[in-house]
Amino acid sequence: MDNGVTETEEFETRLIEVADRVTVALDRLIPPADGPEAQLMRAMRYAALATGKRLRPFFVLGFGELFEAPEKSLLRTAAALECVHTYSLIHDDLPCMDDDDLRRGQPTVHKQFDEATAVLAGDALLTLAFEILGHPDTHQDASIRCKLIERLARASGAQGMVGGQMIDMLSGDVRQDLNSVTRMQRLKTGALISYAGEAACILGGASDAERQAVHGFTHDLGLAYQIADDLLDVEGDPEIVGKQTQKDEAAGKANFVSILGVDDAKQRVRLLASQAKEHLAIFRNRANLLLQSVDFVLKRQN
Amino acid sequence: MDNGVTETEEFETRLIEVADRVTVALDRLIPPADGPEAQLMRAMRYAALATGKRLRPFFVLGFGELFEAPEKSLLRTAAALECVHTYSLIHDDLPCMDDDDLRRGQPTVHKQFDEATAVLAGDALLTLAFEILGHPDTHQDASIRCKLIERLARASGAQGMVGGQMIDMLSGDVRQDLNSVTRMQRLKTGALISYAGEAACILGGASDAERQAVHGFTHDLGLAYQIADDLLDVEGDPEIVGKQTQKDEAAGKANFVSILGVDDAKQRVRLLASQAKEHLAIFRNRANLLLQSVDFVLKRQN
Repeated sequence: MDNGVTETEEFETRLIEVADRVTVALDRLIPPADGPEAQLMRAMRYAALATGKRLRPFFVLGFGELFEAPEKSLLRTAAALECVHTYSLIHDDLPCMDDDDLRRGQPTVHKQFDEATAVLAGDALLTLAFEILGHPDTHQDASIRCKLIERLARASGAQGMVGGQMIDMLSGDVRQDLNSVTRMQRLKTGALISYAGEAACILGGASDAERQAVHGFTHDLGLAYQIADDLLDVEGDPEIVGKQTQKDEAAGKANFVSILGVDDAKQRVRLLASQAKEHLAIFRNRANLLLQSVDFVLKRQN
Repeated sequence: MDNGVTETEEFETRLIEVADRVTVALDRLIPPADGPEAQLMRAMRYAALATGKRLRPFFVLGFGELFEAPEKSLLRTAAALECVHTYSLIHDDLPCMDDDDLRRGQPTVHKQFDEATAVLAGDALLTLAFEILGHPDTHQDASIRCKLIERLARASGAQGMVGGQMIDMLSGDVRQDLNSVTRMQRLKTGALISYAGEAACILGGASDAERQAVHGFTHDLGLAYQIADDLLDVEGDPEIVGKQTQKDEAAGKANFVSILGVDDAKQRVRLLASQAKEHLAIFRNRANLLLQSVDFVLKRQN
């Protein structure tokens, strides 16, 4: 049996396993409700329990297990992070933002429910993330919980993800170059991917050298992932991708592919993937599964 | 000099003083930014630094000083709470929600900027609230910070403020009675007002009896405040109120006044105000300023 195939299978099995565990955790953390607010919980569950790759949770658990961090802490942190990611998708899909009808292969929240429900479900998921992290079940040491909270807020707020989305919204009006697109994506998608690794380091008591290695990995892999995303936007099949494609061109927005061209963009993904792997060298073969995640990003089709 | 006038003046001077201190704190916590994300910070500052009564911060500081809680902790907590309140106003004013053009006497954020900026500015202010509370500057004891965070998340999330707004959005479709309107308002506005008192209790190490007194006070005063708000919606002058009036009737929504009538609504405000004062009896004359806040709510015109 070809070794490459075995590794891919091992990784994909593990990715699905992590996704299932996070979905079970989210199912418990967002219980269905009775009464007039039932629609809010339905919308939160509709978005949060939809099938997703759960790549951010995968990195929380992957690095966390490397550092032997407590299982329950990792799972709750991964669920909180996925709440933030899900809220950002709901709000980004709104008509006043990217105006998308399809997400994770199903109608977007404002299509399935309505715009007000979509705004509120996003707000409630963001709020829930901090409630989860603040709760003693996440870690017995409150200073660890506060660190997780403060870093998540920074990664997802005005100087992180939301700031990146603001830049993206305004980017149709100004000429974009490689630097500006890179900075926008580092904030919009990179910050949360980096948080996944950082949270694992906080929970696992990683050393400074380990922290730097993890940060280097998530930085490079996050960027590779985004360029792969732009390649899918240009070349992908909406049926497989699970969302609309060729959106950037329609919106008059530059992306990595429009600036670099398809060939150079692919070359850059390979370069970043190779760099990402190098960062993991200090972990030797304990990081095998994380190395495999790089190949998964290289080959991604959705 | 009439004693009543003196007390009102003392209270209003103090309310303005607290409002100024919170505005200064928010001005520091939301610095203007350069670069393409500058618009996001401008919108956050536009909403958060606009003149408001800052009633929630007043209760944090008023009760906090009663319990001799650390000044800096109170101010940062009050600022965080005001971030959450401001975000909720921005999102509630959106076209897909209450569709308001005027707030705190100035154009709403989506009118002054655009809808995408309004959604993102709200998201960023909510996130900032948790960043502020998570930071060691808020309190040296991380378990206190986590308690502030967890309680704020619960008060403002799906089981609190956001849940209340969801019920409010759907309330045009179903027949409302006094119980359902009371429950909606307890979640939508009451939860954050109660949090103001609760946060002061957490920071000041209040006893169980003190906690219950504070909770009783904020519960009754919060409801009185909302009924007064509904009376303003029916009877107020938009020039003085600083926002549109007669909105509930236009939206086909029941409120306290449409259910109770003007006279019974006024009677209920007086009853709740009197109950609120009784809760403060255990604090004797140390709670004078808080007693005065009740009269302020009774007489409110905006």
